[in-house]
Amino acid sequence: MLEELKKKVYEANMLLPKYGLVTFTWGNVSGVDREKKLFVIKPSGVPYEELTPESMVVCDFDGNRVEGDYNPSSDTLTHAYLYSHWDKIGGVVHTHSPYATSWAQAGRSIPCYGTTHADYYYGEVPCLRTLTKEEIDTAYELNTGVLIVDEFARMKKDPEAVSACLCKNHGPFTWGKDPLDAVHSAVVLEEVAKMAFRTELINPKVEPAPQCLQDKHYYRKHGAGAYYGQAKK
Amino acid sequence: MLEELKKKVYEANMLLPKYGLVTFTWGNVSGVDREKKLFVIKPSGVPYEELTPESMVVCDFDGNRVEGDYNPSSDTLTHAYLYSHWDKIGGVVHTHSPYATSWAQAGRSIPCYGTTHADYYYGEVPCLRTLTKEEIDTAYELNTGVLIVDEFARMKKDPEAVSACLCKNHGPFTWGKDPLDAVHSAVVLEEVAKMAFRTELINPKVEPAPQCLQDKHYYRKHGAGAYYGQAKK
Amino acid sequence: MLEELKKKVYEANMLLPKYGLVTFTWGNVSGVDREKKLFVIKPSGVPYEELTPESMVVCDFDGNRVEGDYNPSSDTLTHAYLYSHWDKIGGVVHTHSPYATSWAQAGRSIPCYGTTHADYYYGEVPCLRTLTKEEIDTAYELNTGVLIVDEFARMKKDPEAVSACLCKNHGPFTWGKDPLDAVHSAVVLEEVAKMAFRTELINPKVEPAPQCLQDKHYYRKHGAGAYYGQAKK
Amino acid sequence: MLEELKKKVYEANMLLPKYGLVTFTWGNVSGVDREKKLFVIKPSGVPYEELTPESMVVCDFDGNRVEGDYNPSSDTLTHAYLYSHWDKIGGVVHTHSPYATSWAQAGRSIPCYGTTHADYYYGEVPCLRTLTKEEIDTAYELNTGVLIVDEFARMKKDPEAVSACLCKNHGPFTWGKDPLDAVHSAVVLEEVAKMAFRTELINPKVEPAPQCLQDKHYYRKHGAGAYYGQAKK
Repeated sequence: MLEELKKKVYEANMLLPKYGLVTFTWGNVSGVDREKKLFVIKPSGVPYEELTPESMVVCDFDGNRVEGDYNPSSDTLTHAYLYSHWDKIGGVVHTHSPYATSWAQAGRSIPCYGTTHADYYYGEVPCLRTLTKEEIDTAYELNTGVLIVDEFARMKKDPEAVSACLCKNHGPFTWGKDPLDAVHSAVVLEEVAKMAFRTELINPKVEPAPQCLQDKHYYRKHGAGAYYGQAKK
Repeated sequence: MLEELKKKVYEANMLLPKYGLVTFTWGNVSGVDREKKLFVIKPSGVPYEELTPESMVVCDFDGNRVEGDYNPSSDTLTHAYLYSHWDKIGGVVHTHSPYATSWAQAGRSIPCYGTTHADYYYGEVPCLRTLTKEEIDTAYELNTGVLIVDEFARMKKDPEAVSACLCKNHGPFTWGKDPLDAVHSAVVLEEVAKMAFRTELINPKVEPAPQCLQDKHYYRKHGAGAYYGQAKK
Repeated sequence: MLEELKKKVYEANMLLPKYGLVTFTWGNVSGVDREKKLFVIKPSGVPYEELTPESMVVCDFDGNRVEGDYNPSSDTLTHAYLYSHWDKIGGVVHTHSPYATSWAQAGRSIPCYGTTHADYYYGEVPCLRTLTKEEIDTAYELNTGVLIVDEFARMKKDPEAVSACLCKNHGPFTWGKDPLDAVHSAVVLEEVAKMAFRTELINPKVEPAPQCLQDKHYYRKHGAGAYYGQAKK
Repeated sequence: MLEELKKKVYEANMLLPKYGLVTFTWGNVSGVDREKKLFVIKPSGVPYEELTPESMVVCDFDGNRVEGDYNPSSDTLTHAYLYSHWDKIGGVVHTHSPYATSWAQAGRSIPCYGTTHADYYYGEVPCLRTLTKEEIDTAYELNTGVLIVDEFARMKKDPEAVSACLCKNHGPFTWGKDPLDAVHSAVVLEEVAKMAFRTELINPKVEPAPQCLQDKHYYRKHGAGAYYGQAKK
């Protein structure tokens, strides 16, 4: 069942340790099959060196396991909620990557200080509030998904234009058009978080990059006028 | 004598350089045999690349060498005291891992700023006071063990719920149910110390994570209601 | 066409990931043929592992593609302007290397704090202003080149004596007598940026190194009185 | 001539890139033959991958080349002066290792904040003043040696008890009983410099470790009462 997607999700998961984004089992990637309304996700707490495409778990959009020998990631309900409410995303990633997690712990959104950020994210990467005691005690992982979707709506942020957020006191979630693209965003986010950290230490009074520069770089890579890279065939 | 334990302790020691926790010979791991009231520990000052399972040293709970060609680690009496006073631990680790040691040198406990910390340690990782001149001059390594055990009792901290501490001006000790688990805690501690360091630089006024979130993550992984990972078979 | 130069430019590009200066495709190196008034540059957005000498693109000094299957780097017009206005440079590099980019994002020139800097750059490495909205909207990449050349002239800085600059909110450009030499400068710049960052955190009131020491080290390696290294044969 | 020493000096030099202490050719190790009053040193500016035992250069205590095809390191006169004035040292190292160099650029001595430092260095690692314009212009490298020897005498520091110093706006010099031991000190210094940097950022009001703890750790490893490691056979 969904063998090809399992392979893609497996390979995307294996990129997390390769890019230095995870320690032990602290991360997970999933990918969706929009027609079948199912997604494939890493099993919970299984060491990366023991993962195989076959060990991936298939779930429905309510987070129920549909196929697989293992329990799915403990964050499965967050992934499920994102897939069922954002119909243009094809992959989701959660990590505890050190720089992005430090911003999340600090409770701060990452300002756009330069073109490295602007090339990928339109505007700041938002840090969302901590869940309330009630939200945590009733349905923690589901409510994490609810918060992300609600806050992006409230802030009028397009999840395609800002494919990342920080959950306060926790860590980053990223997404993309497929599992690989979501991992790509996780790598970029860590790099952007690292540079923003150092930027503020070098100049504590630094301001975000001018909007016209942010626009230029974002639209150099995205939308009808993009001219970065090679024409897609 | 204790050949299987020696192998485990040897392998756990070899993980310290693999995880970047030690420079030269600056670390040691031990493991206990509760029935025989003996523990196995790394020899003192022998380069990691020359270690073998056979070079591990067997000691009793007073820290006397019972078997082995080498002198045991200079920190042996600390390990011995922990084993003889905390009967649920099976492995002990000491390193000078750079971030944890920097917190120890700074004389500060590591606050719980997020779920990465809360997943493993219940509450802050305490930094214990420097030993007095008298404690140092009479029985330095033994008194290090006495201090750890006494302070945890005084603070009403359960060593199973907080498997790590910092010794001021010195560095971290960690422990666990076996040598591998104690190394696991040493790796987590270094990661947590790194993130807390950056968190405070990003937001100097940061507060610890709300208690309800700390509880949620700790009990997601520990105790009767845990649901992280796979059911133990 | 220009097969030897393509090979050199290819090899210089492959050094960027080797030295940890790029993530994904975030960097480019070019090299010039002064007689033919052409330069060879990396294609835009092609992953490093897929690059070959044959995939390099040949451009003229107006930035037009003269030969090659791919679109040239999106920064081609910047390279073109530098080659056409600075006739002693043979290679140009652009990266988003993390420390240098953090200084660029912070909008600060890198002061000369020691001999590591003075050995390569005579005086500070300047951070140039952000382009205006008009400069960005009309001809962004070309105007980046114009700014670099104009500002070096205005500051009376010799591009041979300071083979690097930072573009505010963006990142570094470096250059040299050939592509390899330009990469060399990019590596040095990142190292110098890293040390200057830490230097200021260790001593917030630090002053630049005395001019006489800067002179000594620069001229130990450059000019008629140089005595570092081996005599060129 | 001195073939065995050349091999040792070569191998010690090759450890510098292995331990991440040098970029390009920014470091040098030498070793002495006390009977012949000669020392062997790395040639100037030759890439590490091209070094061989045969390429090492033999010099006398005035810094004159006695044998070898290459020019000796540009810092040769500093090494020569240290050998001719400190008769117990057998090896000298100079690097631009990033953390130690940042302290040197900041113009600050490294305080002893913990046992990692105290295990190797008795008291702070001093940062010596910048040379005067006159000292630089007349005999820069020789005067660097003069300064180190004079300042250690003035501060009543024993070079055996503190086998490292920082030259302001420049970088570290370390030494030891042989070339390997001097490299060992260079590695320790970088680690100590890194931890001290972070220690001060974690606690800006931190004080050095108590003298009794410094004494305990230093004398656990050095002198008649040492009990760290294995008995020398």
